[in-house]
Amino acid sequence: MNLPRPLLIRDVGEQGLLARLQRFCPPGMIGDDAALLAVVPGLLLVVTEDVLVDGVHFSVGLASPIVTTVAADVGWRAAAANLSDLAAMGASPLGITVGLGLPGELPVAWVEEFYAGLTECLNQYGTVVAGGDICRSPVLTVAIAAFGQVPPNRVIRRSTAQPGDAILVTGSHGASRAGLELLLHPEQGTALTPGDRTSLIRAHQRPNPRLDVIPALWTTQLSDQSAKARITGMDSSDGLADAVLQICRASGVGATLERQRLPLPPALTGWISPAQAIDWALYGGEDFELVLCLPSELAQQVQRRLPGAAIVGSITHGSEVILIDSAGTDEPTRLSLEQGFQHFT
Amino acid sequence: MNLPRPLLIRDVGEQGLLARLQRFCPPGMIGDDAALLAVVPGLLLVVTEDVLVDGVHFSVGLASPIVTTVAADVGWRAAAANLSDLAAMGASPLGITVGLGLPGELPVAWVEEFYAGLTECLNQYGTVVAGGDICRSPVLTVAIAAFGQVPPNRVIRRSTAQPGDAILVTGSHGASRAGLELLLHPEQGTALTPGDRTSLIRAHQRPNPRLDVIPALWTTQLSDQSAKARITGMDSSDGLADAVLQICRASGVGATLERQRLPLPPALTGWISPAQAIDWALYGGEDFELVLCLPSELAQQVQRRLPGAAIVGSITHGSEVILIDSAGTDEPTRLSLEQGFQHFT
Repeated sequence: MNLPRPLLIRDVGEQGLLARLQRFCPPGMIGDDAALLAVVPGLLLVVTEDVLVDGVHFSVGLASPIVTTVAADVGWRAAAANLSDLAAMGASPLGITVGLGLPGELPVAWVEEFYAGLTECLNQYGTVVAGGDICRSPVLTVAIAAFGQVPPNRVIRRSTAQPGDAILVTGSHGASRAGLELLLHPEQGTALTPGDRTSLIRAHQRPNPRLDVIPALWTTQLSDQSAKARITGMDSSDGLADAVLQICRASGVGATLERQRLPLPPALTGWISPAQAIDWALYGGEDFELVLCLPSELAQQVQRRLPGAAIVGSITHGSEVILIDSAGTDEPTRLSLEQGFQHFT
Repeated sequence: MNLPRPLLIRDVGEQGLLARLQRFCPPGMIGDDAALLAVVPGLLLVVTEDVLVDGVHFSVGLASPIVTTVAADVGWRAAAANLSDLAAMGASPLGITVGLGLPGELPVAWVEEFYAGLTECLNQYGTVVAGGDICRSPVLTVAIAAFGQVPPNRVIRRSTAQPGDAILVTGSHGASRAGLELLLHPEQGTALTPGDRTSLIRAHQRPNPRLDVIPALWTTQLSDQSAKARITGMDSSDGLADAVLQICRASGVGATLERQRLPLPPALTGWISPAQAIDWALYGGEDFELVLCLPSELAQQVQRRLPGAAIVGSITHGSEVILIDSAGTDEPTRLSLEQGFQHFT
């Protein structure tokens, strides 16, 4: 029996597709050469861009029936990654633009489900698709630019960490990598409860950018008379190790991380070895937490206000990032950027 | 004899490439999760995104030695197209972000020349690369988001044209299409002078976004006591016919264009037929002029101030866009969007 052929991009053309996507955008935003957004006077504009490519960052599997089930997750993750970059700058979101390169043989339903997942994530954080572009491409490509705003004195940079600062992470690390493992190898993790399995997979498919951290950060700071703080930081999209290393390089400092303090998803215990769990936490990536460096007293207050946050180490003089084992079992290890990199190979 | 193999993207990796591209960006812009830009208080933020794909919008010709000669033009055109979208909204530019999907086998020199052409165009209009993203892709893909600012009462929209408005174009149309023809078929246009040939090719390779029109527009309006004008418009990136049709559809009006008034590059006379020249002017695209609808008196003043500008017709009741021949030789023709479209085939 032949299933009816799904409606393809080449069947509807550019105008037909635009008409279908309009319902995902606020009225009045689409239809001009560009979109208009209001920036609060005195705030700085924050802009960031991400490019995602089929077969590199996600897999459409055009030939397989799973195509329409993952599109919403691709959309959610694309939105989340960009909103996370805004959070990492201390900004609140104004909107995003979406550029799509689409093969003619892609089902229209894929694009609609992609947009549904994308806007579901945006709506959760009170922001919108403000415009975009669609064009033909042999490879499905998603380019998202995100815009936000931030008061000039509340910008979070990578380059301002100082020796003595505490390093605080806003949540556990390794869950996204674990979820990916379960998606790639469903036969794994047999000891996991169904609930744990679902939540690890969800951590990978539907990560939550930590925009909620920003107001918590500044209200904590305001109530703390002693700390007129610089706050340094970035997100852990490329892994916790990468974030600490990037901050240290930009700030000209080193860091010590304590193995026992790294917050890991409890579900990993009993499935994988402690060493494997630490590896996923440090190098897995895509947990989209914030890695912040701030004066110790302020860090402790922030930790109390943010469930799941943990102080995992401190900034030091020098330039090395050392992982130490406070139990004394393992030798101190020097972390390096090479392990966290995506190469052009 | 084997030529030395050029340095490829996969040889330098993400960090190596970023280091090489940093010199094209203002100091301090690169290195955080996002870039910061200041918007003048009270102005609206304008955002737009374009995606360009190798083999669709340009051709890298990885296997051919011409690869490094065209990269600068791809960069210029990518910048110009986005700046033109800002001009079409009445905005002045704040900056752009550049997302690149790069095959590992692409020469590093291609990306550097692309950036050189891109920033040459941006510099000419006083703006900058404010950030971006690079990633691996099987197909070279360029995604550019551009940001600008505009006073709320000076936004140029597509939807505000009214019957009686004059239709003004800021320059001649068809040169970009003619330049493309000469690049694709160098044996053509033997009657052209070398200067004309060069300038047509240059019109295609190095189009100039009309950001200069915006201040001219508003200073004209200020000096004209009678016209508290709405100004309607868009750019002619997809062709003059497409621009008029899009404006008419968005505004719920029709238009009449006069064949004799369409400004054509003089070089086309004596090379191609008048009918062919009109076709290239209407449907060729990529001339990146502005198509503006404004009260007749204001249109005449703007025309006097902008060398090359021409009033080509007027907005009418109804919904049809008719091309008329004031010499009476040709029958009136109804223009349609179908001829100007890029399909997903």
